[in-house]
Amino acid sequence: MRMPDWSLVQYRGGDPEQLRTGVLVDDKVVQGPPELEGLDLLQVVQRWEALAPRLRTWTPQDSPVVPDAVLTAPLTYPSKVLCAGANYFDHIAEMGVQRPAQTGDPFFFLKPPTTTVTGPGAAVPLPGYPGARVDWEAELAVVIGKSGRDVPVAEADGHIAGYVVANDISARDRLRMATPIAEPFTYDWLAHKGQDGFCPMGPGIVPAWQVTDPQDLRIRLSVNGTVKQDSDTGQMMVPVRELVAAASRLTRLEPGDVILTGTPAGCGVPRGEFLNAGDEIVVEIEGVGRLHNTVVQA
Amino acid sequence: MRMPDWSLVQYRGGDPEQLRTGVLVDDKVVQGPPELEGLDLLQVVQRWEALAPRLRTWTPQDSPVVPDAVLTAPLTYPSKVLCAGANYFDHIAEMGVQRPAQTGDPFFFLKPPTTTVTGPGAAVPLPGYPGARVDWEAELAVVIGKSGRDVPVAEADGHIAGYVVANDISARDRLRMATPIAEPFTYDWLAHKGQDGFCPMGPGIVPAWQVTDPQDLRIRLSVNGTVKQDSDTGQMMVPVRELVAAASRLTRLEPGDVILTGTPAGCGVPRGEFLNAGDEIVVEIEGVGRLHNTVVQA
Repeated sequence: MRMPDWSLVQYRGGDPEQLRTGVLVDDKVVQGPPELEGLDLLQVVQRWEALAPRLRTWTPQDSPVVPDAVLTAPLTYPSKVLCAGANYFDHIAEMGVQRPAQTGDPFFFLKPPTTTVTGPGAAVPLPGYPGARVDWEAELAVVIGKSGRDVPVAEADGHIAGYVVANDISARDRLRMATPIAEPFTYDWLAHKGQDGFCPMGPGIVPAWQVTDPQDLRIRLSVNGTVKQDSDTGQMMVPVRELVAAASRLTRLEPGDVILTGTPAGCGVPRGEFLNAGDEIVVEIEGVGRLHNTVVQA
Repeated sequence: MRMPDWSLVQYRGGDPEQLRTGVLVDDKVVQGPPELEGLDLLQVVQRWEALAPRLRTWTPQDSPVVPDAVLTAPLTYPSKVLCAGANYFDHIAEMGVQRPAQTGDPFFFLKPPTTTVTGPGAAVPLPGYPGARVDWEAELAVVIGKSGRDVPVAEADGHIAGYVVANDISARDRLRMATPIAEPFTYDWLAHKGQDGFCPMGPGIVPAWQVTDPQDLRIRLSVNGTVKQDSDTGQMMVPVRELVAAASRLTRLEPGDVILTGTPAGCGVPRGEFLNAGDEIVVEIEGVGRLHNTVVQA
């Protein structure tokens, strides 16, 4: 699958050792332009309006390689991780949900950023309690580069710094509360979606100008080399620009905020397949990146 | 109502001007012990295990007053704002929910910290769309002072730095999605609870050792001087220690995390009463503090 020309990654290194921003080209990390020196990737995204013009004309050609760079999570940490639920036509079909005549407002839930967001190569911990049924969800995630409230759809592009591959790990056994006190408290979004390590993302953030059309990207997930999800972002019910606009009508978007845009067909739950310790998960999105994580028993 | 001996507050000031930690005694802000110098209140809470022994023996007597200190939100910002839903017997009764024979696990939802948390005196913005029905919810909030996962109930106290008064502002018109795609997406916790400015808290964090019994505190809320909520924390279905333990089974608790513990009877929604621009809301919790905010049209 086609990978991006380059993406922005975060690693720990240098002298003094600290979180730094590098550039991933194929499998190598090279130095970015001097303007990124001393900044972690969240700081780069927070200065996106100032830095983007420089990055647009920059090329990694002849940039020195950063030796032994071990990548961290790309953003440590977003102030919000917003996730759109049930946003692919092929996924709602496999979940037995009828295609709506008209698409309404998207549904969003939150993940706690500091405890869920991890990076490429990170372990995906299975919860310690017995009977956990943990599933994968390949997702295209949007990284916000400009603050905004009530952003019109036509201006949404101007708020997007770039894109990153994410995996919306989900404990299907915790979808529902065991003994809900009343109907509004039936579905448990924190336990279902927000457990520790449940939001791997990376390896890098691809600047938005490298992605010609975010609704025309192949998205694929495999477990131990077997393809489970293989779809394209054209299956999104509410497309990226409208998701950004809709989220901004509920909450001020801030640079570094991440919006996961939903998952296509091929989740484990409709087939009764779940993750086991030792499983290798690879999520690939055309032109955005390839994210590899290993499942471990916590 | 009895107020705390003192609480830790955050203000912007000094030279150089920055976020600083002070101590609120009655209505005056005084300097804390020198160990807090140069630290904002989140940093103080993040060093709680080291600083608590010093604060326990410290008294504000003879501390110099900080002139013209304007308080900010006490924590800018928690990494998680966890909220327990439906956690007071008298509140579930007024909502028409039957008292359960046995209390199950508490229900938690998240608020986005940086956009919802505000401080004493802050404006509570009514959403800009027509038909917003915005309600109050007086809540005792717990501030975590020590990281923890799977904390036993008997050890929960050791993870609590202190307590703060909070108001879990709620847009009742956004409880339900207008056109849910499927049953799990019926209730919209982000729009209902997570809109901008929907989590005023303060004025200060009262160290846990000043609160003899967190289940024996009067909690009261008034709007324009009329008492709306007047109950006590003994009405909590899942008490503070068990909430901390239950939250830590879902997500790693980190210093600075805030857990709102639910609201007692007296919300507006069962009576069809909602907030209007210009309303003055005062939340008081015995021995914890008095939080005053004004409602504005956003």
